[in-house]
Amino acid sequence: MSSKSNVSLGVIGLSVMGSNLARNAASRGHHVVVYNRTTAVTEKFMADHGADGEFVATKTLNELVEALPAPRVVLVMVKAGNPVDAVLNGLKPLLTPGDVVVDGGNTYYPDTVRRFEDYQAAGLHFMGMGVSGGEEGALHGPSMMPGGSDKVWHLVKAVFEPMAADDKLGGKCVALTGPSASGHFVKMVHNGIEYAIMQIIAELYDILKSTYGLTHADLTAVFHALRDDPALSSFLLDITGDVLEVYEGEAPLIDFIIDQSEQKGTGRWTAETALQLGVAAPSIMAAVAARSQSGDLALRKKGETIRPVAPKQTKKVDLKQLIESTKAAYQTMVILSYIQGFEIILAGKSLGFTVDLPEVARIWRGGCIIQSALLGPITETFKATGDWTGKSLVSLITQSGVTGLRQLVADAAVTGTPALCIMSTLGYMEQMVATRLPQNIVQALRDDFGAHTYRRVDKEGVFHTHWKA
Amino acid sequence: MSSKSNVSLGVIGLSVMGSNLARNAASRGHHVVVYNRTTAVTEKFMADHGADGEFVATKTLNELVEALPAPRVVLVMVKAGNPVDAVLNGLKPLLTPGDVVVDGGNTYYPDTVRRFEDYQAAGLHFMGMGVSGGEEGALHGPSMMPGGSDKVWHLVKAVFEPMAADDKLGGKCVALTGPSASGHFVKMVHNGIEYAIMQIIAELYDILKSTYGLTHADLTAVFHALRDDPALSSFLLDITGDVLEVYEGEAPLIDFIIDQSEQKGTGRWTAETALQLGVAAPSIMAAVAARSQSGDLALRKKGETIRPVAPKQTKKVDLKQLIESTKAAYQTMVILSYIQGFEIILAGKSLGFTVDLPEVARIWRGGCIIQSALLGPITETFKATGDWTGKSLVSLITQSGVTGLRQLVADAAVTGTPALCIMSTLGYMEQMVATRLPQNIVQALRDDFGAHTYRRVDKEGVFHTHWKA
Repeated sequence: MSSKSNVSLGVIGLSVMGSNLARNAASRGHHVVVYNRTTAVTEKFMADHGADGEFVATKTLNELVEALPAPRVVLVMVKAGNPVDAVLNGLKPLLTPGDVVVDGGNTYYPDTVRRFEDYQAAGLHFMGMGVSGGEEGALHGPSMMPGGSDKVWHLVKAVFEPMAADDKLGGKCVALTGPSASGHFVKMVHNGIEYAIMQIIAELYDILKSTYGLTHADLTAVFHALRDDPALSSFLLDITGDVLEVYEGEAPLIDFIIDQSEQKGTGRWTAETALQLGVAAPSIMAAVAARSQSGDLALRKKGETIRPVAPKQTKKVDLKQLIESTKAAYQTMVILSYIQGFEIILAGKSLGFTVDLPEVARIWRGGCIIQSALLGPITETFKATGDWTGKSLVSLITQSGVTGLRQLVADAAVTGTPALCIMSTLGYMEQMVATRLPQNIVQALRDDFGAHTYRRVDKEGVFHTHWKA
Repeated sequence: MSSKSNVSLGVIGLSVMGSNLARNAASRGHHVVVYNRTTAVTEKFMADHGADGEFVATKTLNELVEALPAPRVVLVMVKAGNPVDAVLNGLKPLLTPGDVVVDGGNTYYPDTVRRFEDYQAAGLHFMGMGVSGGEEGALHGPSMMPGGSDKVWHLVKAVFEPMAADDKLGGKCVALTGPSASGHFVKMVHNGIEYAIMQIIAELYDILKSTYGLTHADLTAVFHALRDDPALSSFLLDITGDVLEVYEGEAPLIDFIIDQSEQKGTGRWTAETALQLGVAAPSIMAAVAARSQSGDLALRKKGETIRPVAPKQTKKVDLKQLIESTKAAYQTMVILSYIQGFEIILAGKSLGFTVDLPEVARIWRGGCIIQSALLGPITETFKATGDWTGKSLVSLITQSGVTGLRQLVADAAVTGTPALCIMSTLGYMEQMVATRLPQNIVQALRDDFGAHTYRRVDKEGVFHTHWKA
């Protein structure tokens, strides 16, 4: 335990994320006042961890508020939705102006906008803060994405900065992302990117196995090579490496896991938001669709009945070469996933979320699920170009990455291996780099049946044609 | 002009769709009372078409209501959104119980739900009716998708049935789709399918041109072969054939059309609704993303700077063989687009839209933009299997279609031709037919970082593993 910090924090909600953040705070020397609706949970927490720091257990919201010195900082870690409203409404009459309540849950950003305004009207401070890093991150140092006003951030900075992960640049993985619900907005997009990268890893695994016919040992070697490349190293590759190494008897444990993935909504919210903002985000949408479709057993049962035959891959696989092309393709796909995410964050400006993208890239460098060495060149590119958009990252895409990705898709396609997200990522890139897209056909068809008119490459104005000869 | 029908109809809004529907109604012998907010538009309409039928021009909503015998049927054809509310609010005090107002615009279905309830509370009848067919369809016979109660449908059936297209089975392309806003919901999905098929056609054009290096004459021949195949013939292939035949000087006119496509929102609504309902609809989402991305000139300008090189296709193209494989692939892609649409409609049940899918497939057989000979086997499959879901259509997918589609994607991928929608359609299918998906990896990763647990193929229950070796 560190020396005392003279900082106090209230934590409401002691399920895994809340209790690990409370322990994290205590380990930095903070005075931590904890409360859980079910008192037995608080008692269990105190029995397990009470001696590890300066904890005070409370049985009511009132006791919690009384036990904290003003101006108070209270972190709410309860289930997103109505439980957050219940806690905020319960706290409101107990707090005094100047106190700050921080919602650290996975809240959908429109709820945060509403609560922000509600607290502001009551003269109280409210922040929405995205927290990423899973259980381990929460305990040892997560990435934290607060949103709100500068003034309020300065009231709580001393609480959260010591708790955050290191950014590997001498700083900490926490920064004010922007006003209002910017923090939860950024965290939502973080999770959208997470969906895309996880789906890319899953499909890559399948292509290595089903298309290239690699043994489990060989495909594990490919993933370890990716993980061990300093340019690519990332949390998700780390844990993929771990996951592939776990056996049950002779068989990899993953062979026993049901192939239906679940979702809690944040990826879907990101996809919906991208649609609402008119931003193309095919990799994220594909990842959401893949999860939905994996659970649609009625459709899959029908699908199995047609069992189309696919030829086996006949090219002899050179493992060393495959590792190199897979590295390049993977790097390109991850960059493209980040680009889509940053473009959504950028478009969030129209919702009032003016976000400092280089700061977001920096605070994602440690602690969070999508941390990756690739965020190094990304931060540098933002700084070097002064272009704080997803667009500036296009320069990080390499010819070898593009060639590798194209071959990956072609081989998956011919051999009938599902690769919706990898294909969508390629399709997104090709639509970005093409000097001419076939949307002229779409425009001509729309003009034909609906007189929607079109524009021309060689003349100003709008035009309409009677297409029928 | 037909003989008098003894049926009266009021039409509000005389822009292209409204005026063509009014003319259509008059051509069936209906007595048609027209009104437009700007009287000059009404005067122009009467000058151009007044002599073609039994029209009465009115200058106020009150005059329109007075000129119609009770129970009145009034078709509203104004811009979706506030203008519809303005008309409905204006009509409300003028109508008498038993009158029916029908909104025939491209209204977003939640608005229709709200208006339906509002009119019901006032003792008046309201229907939302999707109308598809473009200008020509509106004039000569569209496909019409009304939603509401049986009782009200019987009050207006005699008005709309004569106006609808033939379904090529001896019936008409109009039927009550289901309760409440079912009609606008079905029309929205119709447009989503339309987006997907148009994007598939556009990408197919590009692959034929850029990947296979076909001349404009040769690729036109391929599209004409598709159009002329009785199993595939469709409105969209018809007009694609027309579009490709228009030249300006020596060059096809499409070469001069800007490659940025526009959207009015119905495709995006379909994609958002699919996400909300948890239905995978990758082809529709890809089509929406392709339109967004085509208009994102900032991103495309950056993308152009990387100009990745792609090898040219070196296989010699056998045009006859290419036509056969393209036909098969196209058929499979259209079926898969319909499956996604029907699955969304089916899921609309949770929103209160209990829709008769075989009837929807039947009324789409004529008049509308997505009419296609393929809706024949689709209707028959629904009837033969008794399974009124998108799932029953899986049996229409053929091995040659799957093989052709896989090859198309592989060739597009290697040669760097954008094909987001075609690739998404293949990815959707492969996820449907795969006996095992790689979602076990996603589940293992989620369990590793978030203790989200997983299920197993060989045991009941939920499991959690400490993955780190």
